[in-house]
Amino acid sequence: MATPYKRLDKNNAAVLLVDHQAGLLSLVRDFTPDEFKNNVLALADIAKFFNLPTILTTSFESGPNGPLVPELKAMFPDAPYIARPGQINAWDNEDFVKAIKATGKKQLIIAGVVTDVCVAFPTLSALAEGYDVFVVTDASGTFNPVVRDAALNRMSQAGAQLMNWFAVGCELHRDWRNDIEGFGGLLAGHLPAYANLMQSFSSNAK
Amino acid sequence: MATPYKRLDKNNAAVLLVDHQAGLLSLVRDFTPDEFKNNVLALADIAKFFNLPTILTTSFESGPNGPLVPELKAMFPDAPYIARPGQINAWDNEDFVKAIKATGKKQLIIAGVVTDVCVAFPTLSALAEGYDVFVVTDASGTFNPVVRDAALNRMSQAGAQLMNWFAVGCELHRDWRNDIEGFGGLLAGHLPAYANLMQSFSSNAK
Amino acid sequence: MATPYKRLDKNNAAVLLVDHQAGLLSLVRDFTPDEFKNNVLALADIAKFFNLPTILTTSFESGPNGPLVPELKAMFPDAPYIARPGQINAWDNEDFVKAIKATGKKQLIIAGVVTDVCVAFPTLSALAEGYDVFVVTDASGTFNPVVRDAALNRMSQAGAQLMNWFAVGCELHRDWRNDIEGFGGLLAGHLPAYANLMQSFSSNAK
Amino acid sequence: MATPYKRLDKNNAAVLLVDHQAGLLSLVRDFTPDEFKNNVLALADIAKFFNLPTILTTSFESGPNGPLVPELKAMFPDAPYIARPGQINAWDNEDFVKAIKATGKKQLIIAGVVTDVCVAFPTLSALAEGYDVFVVTDASGTFNPVVRDAALNRMSQAGAQLMNWFAVGCELHRDWRNDIEGFGGLLAGHLPAYANLMQSFSSNAK
Amino acid sequence: MATPYKRLDKNNAAVLLVDHQAGLLSLVRDFTPDEFKNNVLALADIAKFFNLPTILTTSFESGPNGPLVPELKAMFPDAPYIARPGQINAWDNEDFVKAIKATGKKQLIIAGVVTDVCVAFPTLSALAEGYDVFVVTDASGTFNPVVRDAALNRMSQAGAQLMNWFAVGCELHRDWRNDIEGFGGLLAGHLPAYANLMQSFSSNAK
Amino acid sequence: MATPYKRLDKNNAAVLLVDHQAGLLSLVRDFTPDEFKNNVLALADIAKFFNLPTILTTSFESGPNGPLVPELKAMFPDAPYIARPGQINAWDNEDFVKAIKATGKKQLIIAGVVTDVCVAFPTLSALAEGYDVFVVTDASGTFNPVVRDAALNRMSQAGAQLMNWFAVGCELHRDWRNDIEGFGGLLAGHLPAYANLMQSFSSNAK
Amino acid sequence: MATPYKRLDKNNAAVLLVDHQAGLLSLVRDFTPDEFKNNVLALADIAKFFNLPTILTTSFESGPNGPLVPELKAMFPDAPYIARPGQINAWDNEDFVKAIKATGKKQLIIAGVVTDVCVAFPTLSALAEGYDVFVVTDASGTFNPVVRDAALNRMSQAGAQLMNWFAVGCELHRDWRNDIEGFGGLLAGHLPAYANLMQSFSSNAK
Amino acid sequence: MATPYKRLDKNNAAVLLVDHQAGLLSLVRDFTPDEFKNNVLALADIAKFFNLPTILTTSFESGPNGPLVPELKAMFPDAPYIARPGQINAWDNEDFVKAIKATGKKQLIIAGVVTDVCVAFPTLSALAEGYDVFVVTDASGTFNPVVRDAALNRMSQAGAQLMNWFAVGCELHRDWRNDIEGFGGLLAGHLPAYANLMQSFSSNAK
Repeated sequence: MATPYKRLDKNNAAVLLVDHQAGLLSLVRDFTPDEFKNNVLALADIAKFFNLPTILTTSFESGPNGPLVPELKAMFPDAPYIARPGQINAWDNEDFVKAIKATGKKQLIIAGVVTDVCVAFPTLSALAEGYDVFVVTDASGTFNPVVRDAALNRMSQAGAQLMNWFAVGCELHRDWRNDIEGFGGLLAGHLPAYANLMQSFSSNAK
Repeated sequence: MATPYKRLDKNNAAVLLVDHQAGLLSLVRDFTPDEFKNNVLALADIAKFFNLPTILTTSFESGPNGPLVPELKAMFPDAPYIARPGQINAWDNEDFVKAIKATGKKQLIIAGVVTDVCVAFPTLSALAEGYDVFVVTDASGTFNPVVRDAALNRMSQAGAQLMNWFAVGCELHRDWRNDIEGFGGLLAGHLPAYANLMQSFSSNAK
Repeated sequence: MATPYKRLDKNNAAVLLVDHQAGLLSLVRDFTPDEFKNNVLALADIAKFFNLPTILTTSFESGPNGPLVPELKAMFPDAPYIARPGQINAWDNEDFVKAIKATGKKQLIIAGVVTDVCVAFPTLSALAEGYDVFVVTDASGTFNPVVRDAALNRMSQAGAQLMNWFAVGCELHRDWRNDIEGFGGLLAGHLPAYANLMQSFSSNAK
Repeated sequence: MATPYKRLDKNNAAVLLVDHQAGLLSLVRDFTPDEFKNNVLALADIAKFFNLPTILTTSFESGPNGPLVPELKAMFPDAPYIARPGQINAWDNEDFVKAIKATGKKQLIIAGVVTDVCVAFPTLSALAEGYDVFVVTDASGTFNPVVRDAALNRMSQAGAQLMNWFAVGCELHRDWRNDIEGFGGLLAGHLPAYANLMQSFSSNAK
Repeated sequence: MATPYKRLDKNNAAVLLVDHQAGLLSLVRDFTPDEFKNNVLALADIAKFFNLPTILTTSFESGPNGPLVPELKAMFPDAPYIARPGQINAWDNEDFVKAIKATGKKQLIIAGVVTDVCVAFPTLSALAEGYDVFVVTDASGTFNPVVRDAALNRMSQAGAQLMNWFAVGCELHRDWRNDIEGFGGLLAGHLPAYANLMQSFSSNAK
Repeated sequence: MATPYKRLDKNNAAVLLVDHQAGLLSLVRDFTPDEFKNNVLALADIAKFFNLPTILTTSFESGPNGPLVPELKAMFPDAPYIARPGQINAWDNEDFVKAIKATGKKQLIIAGVVTDVCVAFPTLSALAEGYDVFVVTDASGTFNPVVRDAALNRMSQAGAQLMNWFAVGCELHRDWRNDIEGFGGLLAGHLPAYANLMQSFSSNAK
Repeated sequence: MATPYKRLDKNNAAVLLVDHQAGLLSLVRDFTPDEFKNNVLALADIAKFFNLPTILTTSFESGPNGPLVPELKAMFPDAPYIARPGQINAWDNEDFVKAIKATGKKQLIIAGVVTDVCVAFPTLSALAEGYDVFVVTDASGTFNPVVRDAALNRMSQAGAQLMNWFAVGCELHRDWRNDIEGFGGLLAGHLPAYANLMQSFSSNAK
Repeated sequence: MATPYKRLDKNNAAVLLVDHQAGLLSLVRDFTPDEFKNNVLALADIAKFFNLPTILTTSFESGPNGPLVPELKAMFPDAPYIARPGQINAWDNEDFVKAIKATGKKQLIIAGVVTDVCVAFPTLSALAEGYDVFVVTDASGTFNPVVRDAALNRMSQAGAQLMNWFAVGCELHRDWRNDIEGFGGLLAGHLPAYANLMQSFSSNAK
């Protein structure tokens, strides 16, 4: 009796980027700023690469939380962009849920700042409504590892799948032959160690 | 078939602060003293802010375990205060359980020292009696991370939800518009990085 | 509908100390030697204090694995002592299982070296036969934290409860009034920070 | 009501070594190169020692990912060797699955690079088809501990058993008397601390 | 042949607080925000307690670097306050050096953000001009420990003395009898572990 | 008797980038790939920004060590580029030393891979010939922190100054007013936390 | 031209144990309580073993700092015991310095709590008066590693030699043949890993 | 005025391997057993490769300290081998010093177990007698990093140069062209990451 595993499907997945705002990012201390920026942009590149419907949301961006990081704004100029007037759990915002429903997708890939609130709350809400939720743990940041572990445990116990941006990209891509150049370029752009391999390889090839 | 997630509700939650005593605090080594003090007082401020019924309990406070930390005593002068004559698991003390039942709440937010005993035992007892229990992992301390991990695993496997004080506050608050000034002030008081954001913001505003 | 939690009961618990041998101890690297020795002896003191039936077993003690540490041998001169002729999983040794059955206890408190083998294998076997198993994670040691985490996960997912020696002692004791002097002395002997509290306290009392 | 635990059985187990390639290994940062090499070769030695059917597979080995590490190639000259033309999840490659089915084994021991993709994807696929999967966490490597933890959590929650090479070897061996010299030699070759014990012991014996 | 050591003298010491600004503080990652805030304010309290001449300086406070943290501004309303128009090394600002010279002190206690620039540069300049410089390492923050170590090494090799706020306070105070209440209160306010000792002690005294 | 400190001077400094090659970079394990790449490129940007004479050198770039990372090649198309035929210490290569002498500078800013060899050896040689050497510790990488610490100690004891790229940039720039936009842009490009401050600031300004 | 190194000489050394008090010990966080207690008692055993003149001193022991730990008091019943009335630097207390001078020794072995104050101050004073000072870093504790590193740097730069209790014992003993049993027993009592070696050895010998 | 730096010279260097014994190795906890074994054997291979006179010494090898590790014995069958009858500092053994003097070398490369005693003592003695001493920090092990740091500081302050085996090999080799195959093979044997580079490179070359 075999049941297929909950596997990301590029035709059935949407991406939620929650509160990656210039101010809030200063609260993230469980990653170094360099690696966290890289991880978030890698996930964004994956969303672009696979043309996944992507939804942006922010919390009080005219206040201390600050504006959405400009790279994300620039990458998804036509994405639904929900500047929440006050709801902490994005799922409490009707426009946000409507935007998700409008995608028609049942698999939600989510990342945000901070993990224990801006990611955990909509994740738990989405699971409760029957969605499959894939939490991108390395594109979600928070105060420290103790807080992160509690939040990931809570989501995992509720049925969320914990992943990282690289695994998300690979599970969506499935087969290198779908686009070797494109996917390789995406990886090289975000994995310096992989870029070095390519560099050495092509240097040898000459 | 959607089931709503177990979500903290300020009308249905009580706070249990277990054995935050001056002597016992010297046993806590999985947090630095600065951050642990801050975390405990932040949780206490949340209990105050949302007017949650709060119950204090201590173990042998006239002996080496020492008195309840004075800040907590001062913040909750009218709270039930159960100085346990000997029971290690606070739930074995009838007055403690009665005080909880008297609140009429079904969601228990708990923190204490040490995590593996003073938090874990009443958590497991409360779960067994059908309560929803939310363990505040960063306001609970113990000997070292190996001990903490075992204790959190035991509670999580038994159905407890692992959280941190910031997430507890946000889940209770739900919407910033309920009180922007008040909740922002609470956060600024316990998150220096957030206070800095506000400082920079208001400085710019001038 | 309340079900009591799986709670250690001094009238229904036995202690299994598996392969704490002088040679094997040199493999333990997830604790410092000082703290590991202290943790193991603390658990042994607890077994003594509560008069729990205790079973000792070793693997090939006449070879490189070395003899059982002398303190344990000295503390339990009359305990069943099963020097296994070759079985890696102690549960595969009939004498070991018989000794357990002879205690008539249904709660097994287990610790050993190394966690992933000498603890995990009999734990999984005992769970499969319907025992309640309490793994003392800080009196069990192994090669490194990655190995430990895998082993603890495997046992926890199979139904074992992860604990530490201090929590085991407190859950068995239940109420300080059962023996304040005795239990306090046990703690002071193994928790220098607690001993210091007592020292300061009694010094003040004078 | 006792159910036997899922226990490795040398007559019912096969080993899958996925993408241990010279290039990809430079991505592994959650182990030092010395210890990771040792762990992988230890697992390979175990597969040899117990004559377990072993299947090798690689991803794009003529490109930057590089060739399979030569030691593995040399140890298993007659093993099925599936150089995947593009499938990221080895289970998506028919030859790989056929090779597994041809072994007739139901227990799959798996390790690979990187944990979150090359190990996690076929593990989840195999679990979905009813296999028992044993993930060798210390012979599987990836970018960092945050990524590893997410991947191990995902596999564990889906039913995989997390193990390490030493525990795999011991659970397969069951009883030292099956081959003391052989198994001892295997351990000595990969555990310097154990080799030292043997050295001291035999030195004393003289 | 005894030479007295370079010992802080409350009659010959001044305090320099360099660039503790709300924006720049978000760059500090070698301390948690809680502990760093505590350390900086502890040093400020020491300056106050011993009535040491204290000089504040900031860099571009009307821009992204943000305003001086308000607590410092409030504590030293009459202190020289040099808002530097552009000089990175405060010592390049004539007003800053004049303010120091005006104190007539030869011992400079310095802390700031970030350690490798705002602390190191004026420290090296002051040493070159013959001052004794005492760097308060735990009230100075920067990007990460690698950067910190390089900066501290550079200053130490040039003759600076590395200290921490607690040692600075104690070396200035010399003898508890100079003011037991006052100095004890200062420590209790910034060392929760010390406050707990006092709490237990006075509780016993009753 | 004041001696001015050894202070970087943009009119008297040259930059040496030693062996940042695609293959060798896979040996660097004391930084994550993301942060190390960022640090190296930041230092290169500083060299460009201040128009410092910059010298590139590689070791066996047609072999496994791999080609110079392409970004560096692209940034300094006209820089002296010494592909060493075999000398491990770049200073043993006459062309390398000639290129340095040709700059006429007496301050050498050096970074490379690996710290203990490619950086330490020419640093010690240059110091012996009377140069002032500034080692950029965070743009130099090696096998692990134990190796790094030994190498930095050896260089520091021989008179090298240990710095980081940010401090190098700031010490060269001296005064923000020399070019606020330019230097700010450089920092924003390599310090995400600083970029966020700017983002929030300019957002507020609107 | 050979100068003998500053080598500990059992005929010319005295031991200073500064402020190992029950209360102050709760401030020590750079060692676990188990290992710190072991280290301090090991140093005390060394002082006893070599009959080194030993001087005890405490700070305000009738207050929150608490009494000297009882083991030390018991081990040195006839040692000079200076309960300082207020001096923070023990060297400021005439009785303390007199007691040292009375020993006629020129080598001072020192340990205490906290490292940055109670150890550093008298160390710097003693160096200034021409003593050779040997700081026992692992029997001296303080708030955290940043503070420790600053304190050790300050002492080392002033000429102190940094050591650990094991090296102190070995440098004093010089030759095992002076007392194999005695010194071996001392080590076995404080180094569980060494005790295990002895255990295995003597077990084989039988 | 240029002074050449103290640079290893294969014609003027000898290697001292002190107390790498099977028993004592179980005390080493500042490296994992895998990496430490690798580091020691790498240094031994370097001694062989450059035909450096090598001296072996042990302490009480017929007792619990155990025999010299067999690999070292096998590699240097004709080396002077001084089994010290009791001297802890090898330099106190006349045969050891004679053996060193017999080499006629002035540069001593030393490694051993434990760093703070078996390495530090002869290092300090040799420095005092005018030798240049190069301590191989990663082939020397001890109880923990605090102990290591103190020992390295003591040796460094006395004039020893701190290095690692890789830097020692490179400084001796000076130029790859002296023996590309041989030196490359040595590195590949001890640096898996370097072996992978070679593997990928030669695979491409085909």
